[in-house]
Amino acid sequence: MAQQERAIRTREKILVAAAEVFDEVGYDAATISEILKRSGVTKGALYFHFTSKEELAQEVLATQVSALPPVPAQDLVLQQVLDEALVLAYLLHMGDPMVRGSVRLTVDQGSPQDGLDRRVPMQGWIDHNVSLLTEAKERGEIHPHLDIADTAKLLAGSFTGVQVLSKIMTRHEDIVERVADLMRTLLSAIAVPGVLVRLDFAPDRAARVYEGATRLREFEAAKTAV
Amino acid sequence: MAQQERAIRTREKILVAAAEVFDEVGYDAATISEILKRSGVTKGALYFHFTSKEELAQEVLATQVSALPPVPAQDLVLQQVLDEALVLAYLLHMGDPMVRGSVRLTVDQGSPQDGLDRRVPMQGWIDHNVSLLTEAKERGEIHPHLDIADTAKLLAGSFTGVQVLSKIMTRHEDIVERVADLMRTLLSAIAVPGVLVRLDFAPDRAARVYEGATRLREFEAAKTAV
Repeated sequence: MAQQERAIRTREKILVAAAEVFDEVGYDAATISEILKRSGVTKGALYFHFTSKEELAQEVLATQVSALPPVPAQDLVLQQVLDEALVLAYLLHMGDPMVRGSVRLTVDQGSPQDGLDRRVPMQGWIDHNVSLLTEAKERGEIHPHLDIADTAKLLAGSFTGVQVLSKIMTRHEDIVERVADLMRTLLSAIAVPGVLVRLDFAPDRAARVYEGATRLREFEAAKTAV
Repeated sequence: MAQQERAIRTREKILVAAAEVFDEVGYDAATISEILKRSGVTKGALYFHFTSKEELAQEVLATQVSALPPVPAQDLVLQQVLDEALVLAYLLHMGDPMVRGSVRLTVDQGSPQDGLDRRVPMQGWIDHNVSLLTEAKERGEIHPHLDIADTAKLLAGSFTGVQVLSKIMTRHEDIVERVADLMRTLLSAIAVPGVLVRLDFAPDRAARVYEGATRLREFEAAKTAV
């Protein structure tokens, strides 16, 4: 069991180092030797877990949705949608390496030969949004005429662009503000009025929800360790 | 005069070829020799107009806003905002090289050493949106409480992301539909009801406005040639 845990930690260390390097220099310029140096693991250990740079990048892309700590449960599904967007913005603002690296791999077009499937994280967000919006519709939180699939794509796409703009203009300094503004505008059109007035868009909510999500993750980890 | 016109055309040819190469392989992998081959101009002509790959890229970035043909005038300013978004989406869908190349240069993060200032096109869109939204506010088309600067950033950012998503998932096949959906949602929150019901979101509008904008540009060109 201790050995298995050590392997999981080593794998995690390698992925974080890889994500850091992908964030800093992009996929093409990233090298296994730089990832090795950052992670502090041996070459043998790295190749035990991953066969190539491509496999490392694909794994960083695949963990984009799960890199988001689960936010504390809320009475309104749309508050969860909003909270997740705020936490993701907060992680980008704080410079979380997994999220930043994964987001850069997704947005950079790369060469057609690099073999990376950038649809994986995008489809992950779309599926996740479809599931939340379906629940929100069943509970009557959103306008009944809304197309769930279109709205799920709209949320994923517009978030992506707002973070690109914030990265270019302020190096993610204003991303929480930009995302709060995006969500306020989109939810004004999506939520029914009685739900809209109950949503909490307070500027400090991002940090508060992040703290809650981190505690929740630690609690879950402690439970499974017992 | 004929000589000056020839120089303008040569410069344009070089820029289009450069934009094509930037779109296909990105900034780092693009080479002057490939740009030369595509443009069919001589090395001397290229270096007469541009001193380096960086200068070429910066010029492609700078012309992003002006690459959009001016859309025909409308009674409602918000219809112009909507029409411009639809025409830009249509140009990406049609594979217009200047727009595609410029958009890729903006969105790809690149290396900190590449010296490209990606804020130029973004600031261009923000300024352009501020000017349109200010007029819309003066005419009472948008809600009076809206912050013009924030809304201008929101339009630029969310458009960017919706095009990234469409590029990844469908290679811009569905971009007109995605942008129409984005604008419908944003304008629902921005426009006053009496204006919202008068906006034309018809799916075939993108192609129609593009035809009108192209004719308008040809007409303006003919006028200045006389």
